[in-house]
Amino acid sequence: MSKKNLIVGQSGGPTAVINSSLYGVVSEGMRHPDQIGHIYGMINGIEGFLKGNILDFNEALPGEKLSRLIHTPGAYLGSCRHMLPESLSDPVYPELFKRFEELNIGWVFYIGGNDSMDTVSKLSRYASQIGSDIRIIGEPKTIDNDLMHTDHTPGFGSAARYVAFTVREISLDACVYEKKSVTIVEIMGRHAGWLTASSVLARKYKGDNPLLIYLPETVFDQEAFLVSVQKAFEKNCNVVVCVSEGIRDKDGTFICEYSSSADTDNFGHKMLSGCGKYLENLVRTRLGVKARSIELNVSQRCSSALISSTDQQEAILAGCFGVQAALNGETGKMVSFVRQDTGDGSYKIACELKDVNEICNKEKTVPKEWICENGSDVTDDFISYARPLIQGSVDVSMGEDGLPAFVYRK
Amino acid sequence: MSKKNLIVGQSGGPTAVINSSLYGVVSEGMRHPDQIGHIYGMINGIEGFLKGNILDFNEALPGEKLSRLIHTPGAYLGSCRHMLPESLSDPVYPELFKRFEELNIGWVFYIGGNDSMDTVSKLSRYASQIGSDIRIIGEPKTIDNDLMHTDHTPGFGSAARYVAFTVREISLDACVYEKKSVTIVEIMGRHAGWLTASSVLARKYKGDNPLLIYLPETVFDQEAFLVSVQKAFEKNCNVVVCVSEGIRDKDGTFICEYSSSADTDNFGHKMLSGCGKYLENLVRTRLGVKARSIELNVSQRCSSALISSTDQQEAILAGCFGVQAALNGETGKMVSFVRQDTGDGSYKIACELKDVNEICNKEKTVPKEWICENGSDVTDDFISYARPLIQGSVDVSMGEDGLPAFVYRK
Repeated sequence: MSKKNLIVGQSGGPTAVINSSLYGVVSEGMRHPDQIGHIYGMINGIEGFLKGNILDFNEALPGEKLSRLIHTPGAYLGSCRHMLPESLSDPVYPELFKRFEELNIGWVFYIGGNDSMDTVSKLSRYASQIGSDIRIIGEPKTIDNDLMHTDHTPGFGSAARYVAFTVREISLDACVYEKKSVTIVEIMGRHAGWLTASSVLARKYKGDNPLLIYLPETVFDQEAFLVSVQKAFEKNCNVVVCVSEGIRDKDGTFICEYSSSADTDNFGHKMLSGCGKYLENLVRTRLGVKARSIELNVSQRCSSALISSTDQQEAILAGCFGVQAALNGETGKMVSFVRQDTGDGSYKIACELKDVNEICNKEKTVPKEWICENGSDVTDDFISYARPLIQGSVDVSMGEDGLPAFVYRK
Repeated sequence: MSKKNLIVGQSGGPTAVINSSLYGVVSEGMRHPDQIGHIYGMINGIEGFLKGNILDFNEALPGEKLSRLIHTPGAYLGSCRHMLPESLSDPVYPELFKRFEELNIGWVFYIGGNDSMDTVSKLSRYASQIGSDIRIIGEPKTIDNDLMHTDHTPGFGSAARYVAFTVREISLDACVYEKKSVTIVEIMGRHAGWLTASSVLARKYKGDNPLLIYLPETVFDQEAFLVSVQKAFEKNCNVVVCVSEGIRDKDGTFICEYSSSADTDNFGHKMLSGCGKYLENLVRTRLGVKARSIELNVSQRCSSALISSTDQQEAILAGCFGVQAALNGETGKMVSFVRQDTGDGSYKIACELKDVNEICNKEKTVPKEWICENGSDVTDDFISYARPLIQGSVDVSMGEDGLPAFVYRK
């Protein structure tokens, strides 16, 4: 059998371990020199690939350098947000496969979320249609944890660790004064509340901060929220509230829209503030107490120091497993995690393959049974689910300047 | 000589190492059992002390627990923002010293910034006035690094490490797409730009992000800023800009006020947004490019994972040195760091004592000579000054839940 080459791309928003998945794919690829020749990377995903932008990993990250991918946030290869056309008759498909043939590609890996799995779906369906034997595999990636048919996604554990770790620190910072105060922490996740729910892991005991947690899965009522804050003061004069950026009221209006509808700068341009800033203002003016808001922002997806080693190792594992599957002839599948029943309550996962068509363009939200207290808290079942995913610290390799020695594309 | 007791308080905003200073004071105090009896803590600073709120460290943090202070952000003892009256004839002074006498206090330590040194000044002046031999020593603390007569302050190094580390990560996150973008990072420091200047340490080479850095020490011109951003696109299509929260224009108007003057919520209440949000909007509307803003917020002062071990060790050292000085009869002084001339360019500091009256209520800003490029960058001299202060990672002790095992007041 003649050798074929492998190509891998990254797509969508970055995570702290998207480069660990990449490391898994590339390092496993290198372990099969009998079958795999060059290992290429698409620069800026399928969009950059269409412009001919690729690199060869042997040149870009020779030797030891490759392993530094696992500490490097961002997307090493660059990313894109590019949806391929719905119609497989579109001329972009023969164009893409012509390029694949020119590079003698046998295996394509695409690391991403819902939208990226749509690309895997279309490429594999087109391959089948034209009788191409190029194998196309999806590698899951998203901090939002909203992919179907997998226990969780690489990227979520590290983001959840960041949220839990940081909310625990913020809760300490919030409690230094004796005066009543409310701290609103705004957490990523527009439609799915997995990450916001993870703030519960910051609690050291029942009744500890964060005292209130609001996910986008339930209707947010501003008046009920104010009543809950007042009630929370009975437990602690410094109340920490975690909210998803995507909370909405019964009419489906995003809470952040209540501020943005009114905010304009001196030029009359709309200012888009988050729901945290809006709720901070609501609390201050309606309850007359000190209030502040903190948007955790992109550090949720790019903090290297707070990577969960469990997440990092699983991302590598998923990358390796995908390559092995492709070598076994699998295509049109996504690598999925299945939690094992170990009998003793310990945590273990196994990798499986799922039909990518069952995953793309769908969203998995937090089950209603895991949301309680009228939508202002999550249950112990959620805690049992999420706790194992945030375990373990990683050592980030440091450079001479005393800061992380990340790897970069030249 | 009969034994006296020691009391220590924390005041003003917390830092990541304010509890390391506390550890230094308490642990050094415990090393002198021949002279020092009980070691007390003021709960919520001088304000709480006036209400009789104190703790005994032997009961609160026995044995090993004490050392966990050095990983714990926030202010273990709680804090206050309470200025003592200007007039030493105010009845609060005899009240305070009556309490000191009742507790058989011989030594008072107060950990804080400018305002807290004002408390040290007043207490020591009153002690002198009434002929009390109680020794009162100030322990420096502020992320703002704005205290006079010290090379730098405990708390600054860790906050600067957080800023440099995080801006390096944000710069990676900002560069994943090929599309032109501007990322505005808003950094703490209303009057002094030390912390914002530290973002320069994130740069891996000249011309790397952050491409623009604006401190409150120079006048901020919105039009010149837009021109500089346009020019920065020649270096990188993804431009990261670091700004101090306190930047002002030639009329002395805070840039953040340009947004807050216009922002109101649905109830007509003013919404206070930061200058980052305002500049994000300015860039988007005037330059027509993708823009976002990130407020680093309180993690700058409470991130345990990114504590600078240099800063942590120096905070402990300052605490120990202050106790030794007080035992030697010093009073009305603040512990200060003096950088040593080592001849080989290596970094070394020594502790000295400075008259607290020369420090309180003053602010040290970044020297004009260290600001360049028309106020949009800082010089190599600043880099040489700041780089040693952010060196060294710390191991945060982890609990069974996989998150930091901080210590808390019961």
